[in-house]
Amino acid sequence: MLDHTSAADLTIADMHAAHDRIKPYIRRTPVMVSDYLNDMTGAQLFFKCENFQEAGAFKVRGASNAVFGLSDEMAAKGVCTHSSGNHALSLSYAAGRRGIPCNVVMPRTAPQAKKDAVRRYGGTITECDPSTSSREATFAEVQARTGGEFVHPYNDPRVIAGQATCSAELLEQTDGVDAVIAPIGGGGMISGTCLTVSNLAPDTAIYAAEPEQADDAYRSFKAGHIIADDAPKTIADGLLVPLKENTWHFVSNHVTDIFTASEDEIIEAMKLTWKYLRVVMEPSSAVPLATILKNPKVFRGKRVGVIITGGNVDLEKLPWLKG
Amino acid sequence: MLDHTSAADLTIADMHAAHDRIKPYIRRTPVMVSDYLNDMTGAQLFFKCENFQEAGAFKVRGASNAVFGLSDEMAAKGVCTHSSGNHALSLSYAAGRRGIPCNVVMPRTAPQAKKDAVRRYGGTITECDPSTSSREATFAEVQARTGGEFVHPYNDPRVIAGQATCSAELLEQTDGVDAVIAPIGGGGMISGTCLTVSNLAPDTAIYAAEPEQADDAYRSFKAGHIIADDAPKTIADGLLVPLKENTWHFVSNHVTDIFTASEDEIIEAMKLTWKYLRVVMEPSSAVPLATILKNPKVFRGKRVGVIITGGNVDLEKLPWLKG
Repeated sequence: MLDHTSAADLTIADMHAAHDRIKPYIRRTPVMVSDYLNDMTGAQLFFKCENFQEAGAFKVRGASNAVFGLSDEMAAKGVCTHSSGNHALSLSYAAGRRGIPCNVVMPRTAPQAKKDAVRRYGGTITECDPSTSSREATFAEVQARTGGEFVHPYNDPRVIAGQATCSAELLEQTDGVDAVIAPIGGGGMISGTCLTVSNLAPDTAIYAAEPEQADDAYRSFKAGHIIADDAPKTIADGLLVPLKENTWHFVSNHVTDIFTASEDEIIEAMKLTWKYLRVVMEPSSAVPLATILKNPKVFRGKRVGVIITGGNVDLEKLPWLKG
Repeated sequence: MLDHTSAADLTIADMHAAHDRIKPYIRRTPVMVSDYLNDMTGAQLFFKCENFQEAGAFKVRGASNAVFGLSDEMAAKGVCTHSSGNHALSLSYAAGRRGIPCNVVMPRTAPQAKKDAVRRYGGTITECDPSTSSREATFAEVQARTGGEFVHPYNDPRVIAGQATCSAELLEQTDGVDAVIAPIGGGGMISGTCLTVSNLAPDTAIYAAEPEQADDAYRSFKAGHIIADDAPKTIADGLLVPLKENTWHFVSNHVTDIFTASEDEIIEAMKLTWKYLRVVMEPSSAVPLATILKNPKVFRGKRVGVIITGGNVDLEKLPWLKG
């Protein structure tokens, strides 16, 4: 188990240790390409398909690193968390693999597909209102009642070290890229990406992509301090949460730039990816391609790793279909 | 170029030659697994994802083998074909890679996504009515007018040798399976599978999966001779065409059994695959999983290669959504 208390103490050795620990429980997901999307963007895009994890999201990396790093004594009490969805189901999945209890607080507005998955993996859900304040209050009650180990969805060095394994695989699978781009919500994936890329490929640019309607990370990055919104609304339901100190450390020190996209641009990029890459992915995962299409001069002629973060989507409610 | 005139003369050397010829133009598609679908079926399923070819279907293998096997003199006149969709767009794609003309006859009822792709790749479409008789009459006119080399969608040894490369990769990627199952329409993929598997893994069973509403191959297999329907109707739009002598050769000599599934069973299997494997695939590609779910005793405890044949689907018209 990591005994760091702050993300600033994380080293690349923590990423390697996490990778060794979680390899039996995660997939080395494929990197996919589309000539059509390359022609359209003028870039060479390498899509790292974390939607193909069994639990459907990269978050199983960080969750598994936390769960399998616990001592037997700590593990016996189980784990608990709050999450807009994919961390909830990934922690439930990892806890299920270890055979320990998992309690999660989820907004009642979370996609049904994500709630169903939590229950399928054996997690117990307590619902809250879709705001940061309600989520934190409800969680305090659940944690006090269960006594489980809190695994924060992103503000946790164990989680960040786990997410960092994704871009280590991407760099190996592509023999290196000029830039990596990933969605940013609380900043767990971007922080892990920064940990790995700044150490293993320091010349590679690191971009974060965020919905215009939940652009707190963008505004934080420009202001130089954390700005948090209480209840943003966007179709990219995985990106509603604000930065915290451990992810702000990486965002402020290592991110090259943050780009934003509108709801329509996100939906268009999602549909393009379903159509031409033929993968099922969430709206949140479409934000990077939306920003690549919006900022062609930044990416044209470059080799770009694009992290598809998750594929847990309600197939009954596709955003380009009315009704 | 193959100089065989009959599929009965094809040897495993023709498959290897095809693989060497087409490797620059196709992808070695990934084999994907889902713990959830394994639990559901009691089998160990290995999905060979041909929907991830750039043109979205395995048919680019056979089409590329035919196109790149032509002499320069023959190639100059271009190629032509008739197809319910994926062969049309795959031949257009391969012809475009070689820079030669491609004329295709397609039923006017073919999915818009497939017509759009043909045009995107530079093919020219002539529409016909959705029946075998109309298709063949329209094609005779197009071929006489253009003088292009006819590349039949499946009744062509060059095409069968190309399709055969798919299961060669599957066998390598899985270190062998107990059974392979693929959809059957005209029988090109199944024939290629028979060529490869009967030579390289003779103990592996070969199953074909067909819609109940277009079950001519099933009835042919049971009767011992080709039975053809003129205009079957099924959501599995890639499987409307009848067997011909070159594919009947393989079906009658090497297929272990043929299973059928109803429209509802196909739609359910399609949705399951989108949800748990998180890939975009066509209704035709869902027929194998539908028949595995319907015949659990045949597959339980077995390692089963499942060929996902294509992913060109109208995202506006998903069959589990009304309207």
